[in-house]
Amino acid sequence: MIISSIQQYRVDLGARAYDIHIESGCLPEIGIKLTSLFGKASRCLIVSNDVVAPLYLDIVRSSLEAQGWAVAVYLMPDGEQFKNIEQWSKIMDALMATKLSRHEPVIALGGGVVGDMTGFAASCYRRGIPFVQIPTTVLAQVDSSVGGKTAINHPHGKNMIGAFYQPKLVWIDPLVLNTLEQRQVPAGLAEVIKYGLIRDKDFFLWLSQHMQELLALDDDIISQAILRSCAHKAEVVMADETEQGQRALLNLGHTFGHAIESMTHYTTYLHGEAVALGTMMATRLSEQLGFAAKGTEQHVVQIFKAANLPTEIPQFTADAWLDAMGHDKKNIGSLIRYVLLRDIGDAFIAEDVTDKDIRALIASFAP
Amino acid sequence: MIISSIQQYRVDLGARAYDIHIESGCLPEIGIKLTSLFGKASRCLIVSNDVVAPLYLDIVRSSLEAQGWAVAVYLMPDGEQFKNIEQWSKIMDALMATKLSRHEPVIALGGGVVGDMTGFAASCYRRGIPFVQIPTTVLAQVDSSVGGKTAINHPHGKNMIGAFYQPKLVWIDPLVLNTLEQRQVPAGLAEVIKYGLIRDKDFFLWLSQHMQELLALDDDIISQAILRSCAHKAEVVMADETEQGQRALLNLGHTFGHAIESMTHYTTYLHGEAVALGTMMATRLSEQLGFAAKGTEQHVVQIFKAANLPTEIPQFTADAWLDAMGHDKKNIGSLIRYVLLRDIGDAFIAEDVTDKDIRALIASFAP
Repeated sequence: MIISSIQQYRVDLGARAYDIHIESGCLPEIGIKLTSLFGKASRCLIVSNDVVAPLYLDIVRSSLEAQGWAVAVYLMPDGEQFKNIEQWSKIMDALMATKLSRHEPVIALGGGVVGDMTGFAASCYRRGIPFVQIPTTVLAQVDSSVGGKTAINHPHGKNMIGAFYQPKLVWIDPLVLNTLEQRQVPAGLAEVIKYGLIRDKDFFLWLSQHMQELLALDDDIISQAILRSCAHKAEVVMADETEQGQRALLNLGHTFGHAIESMTHYTTYLHGEAVALGTMMATRLSEQLGFAAKGTEQHVVQIFKAANLPTEIPQFTADAWLDAMGHDKKNIGSLIRYVLLRDIGDAFIAEDVTDKDIRALIASFAP
Repeated sequence: MIISSIQQYRVDLGARAYDIHIESGCLPEIGIKLTSLFGKASRCLIVSNDVVAPLYLDIVRSSLEAQGWAVAVYLMPDGEQFKNIEQWSKIMDALMATKLSRHEPVIALGGGVVGDMTGFAASCYRRGIPFVQIPTTVLAQVDSSVGGKTAINHPHGKNMIGAFYQPKLVWIDPLVLNTLEQRQVPAGLAEVIKYGLIRDKDFFLWLSQHMQELLALDDDIISQAILRSCAHKAEVVMADETEQGQRALLNLGHTFGHAIESMTHYTTYLHGEAVALGTMMATRLSEQLGFAAKGTEQHVVQIFKAANLPTEIPQFTADAWLDAMGHDKKNIGSLIRYVLLRDIGDAFIAEDVTDKDIRALIASFAP
């Protein structure tokens, strides 16, 4: 694998182009960066949560205030269960109270939930104002902060309410990962591993070799993993911004994963953990349908185990699985599309998986 | 004025291009049209309200079912006061219950409130599904159904939550206007007159000459007025889809008008009535600041009176006006931008109107 030393990627989407900046220790520089990006310092709103704010809000706020910005703050409770219309409505209230103009930014400081909700709020307020992502989890740094998928959950389906809305900047400081709760690192690595599985076998092998350093958040190794992941995400998004085609490959493990999250009411598994389980299921399905060679699943289980990710599929009836997946927003009509593997590093979209195939898969996971 | 006989305009926005079709008696043809537009008939959701549905829902539904469509319906209560997060959330519930895929359309059958809310719901559900406008009021046919501005109100400001999201088709049957409550016709004509004031003096004069036929909904005259209005709207939207510049001219009368609606809690005036009052205020301001010749306001008052529109400005303190306008979403920073007139048919955006100017204007309307 060629390790790049480039720390900034341009996501080239024409009028919606933006930079992903990755640099250890860059958090206190955000004030200078935003002033250079938005010109004369003005007002902004920072949205964060009650776990991240005590750690990093003062750094970000001071950095902005030092450049003359008037900074308002809205804090939400931490957790996927708050990614709902009620909390989004409160962010809209905060935007209204701040009276931000169409040209003043809102800043998401937190993980995927904060980023997804803030992005959707930014897309709606005055029909769209600029927003900036400062992701503070592995998952948000390698996946959710890049690419403009913003959303909240509906009681009947994850991310069913949202917008394609690109940020103006993604500002990534890998050092902030050191304060993460232990379980969050593996959960984020699940999405890193995903890029290897979908389109980069060399990366998959490199990740396997460096799993201990990744889990220990070795600065050099984790920075390389973030860089490579963001580059993959940016490439895919540039080719297919609104998921008409290949962007759907990024949903490897997500059809099953979303079902797991939904059936467990978003309280049992972190998103990345559910994706890891879903990826195992998609890999076994790939084997069962004859697309992938026997033993592919074993490689996948191995790396997830090494990453301290769960590998035990929760037990539900096949009907419950199918129902939970019927709501998945990647369906066309009543057809469920599955992202499957031909090999590690080679994913594709299968259009013709039947209910019977899924029932056989579920049965194979029975104890 | 050259009267066009063309009944269909293409709003050319590249990948988001769509047709505005205007034809008396076209309502029962919607099923055939949607089948040709979306291919194989599938599922759709019609959103309407409890006033429009008893009149036109069966026609639209039968027309679709005759082509093999599975039609779901969601009805909301009628009125601007229901253009809020709660009602929008119920439309989202209906979309979830219908389980529409990303390729199946939602149809707005009603006036501006139904169209704005349905459009915003369509933009959010699964991050965007196709939607179709079947406007049933003058205001919706000449203005709100064209151009992709979708929104709901926030308690602290009108249309503050929304998206730029274009429909796939606007299907206009002028015959449906015959069942409108009497007050709705003048309210819609306020927006028709607006196009004349902003960019088409000949049209303004033609409207003055034909006001009685317009109020009587003479089929030929009202159709011509709708055609001309949609052409103006489409031209402006094609030049400036997301209101970076000249599209803001369409907000003539809206900064004052929104303030009037907000201060009267959306219960006293129809939107078009408030816009008429706001347009009078903008015209007087244009005179007071020396941009428009003395007597311009008189022409404006004359046509509004002929159209049975209110011309009595409601009384509030200057502070109440400024506060209500401070929330207007067309502001940049703390600056309030006003659309003013140099002449009938020649609007421009004034960036340097002061609070003092507004206070003098308000004082001049005191009894």
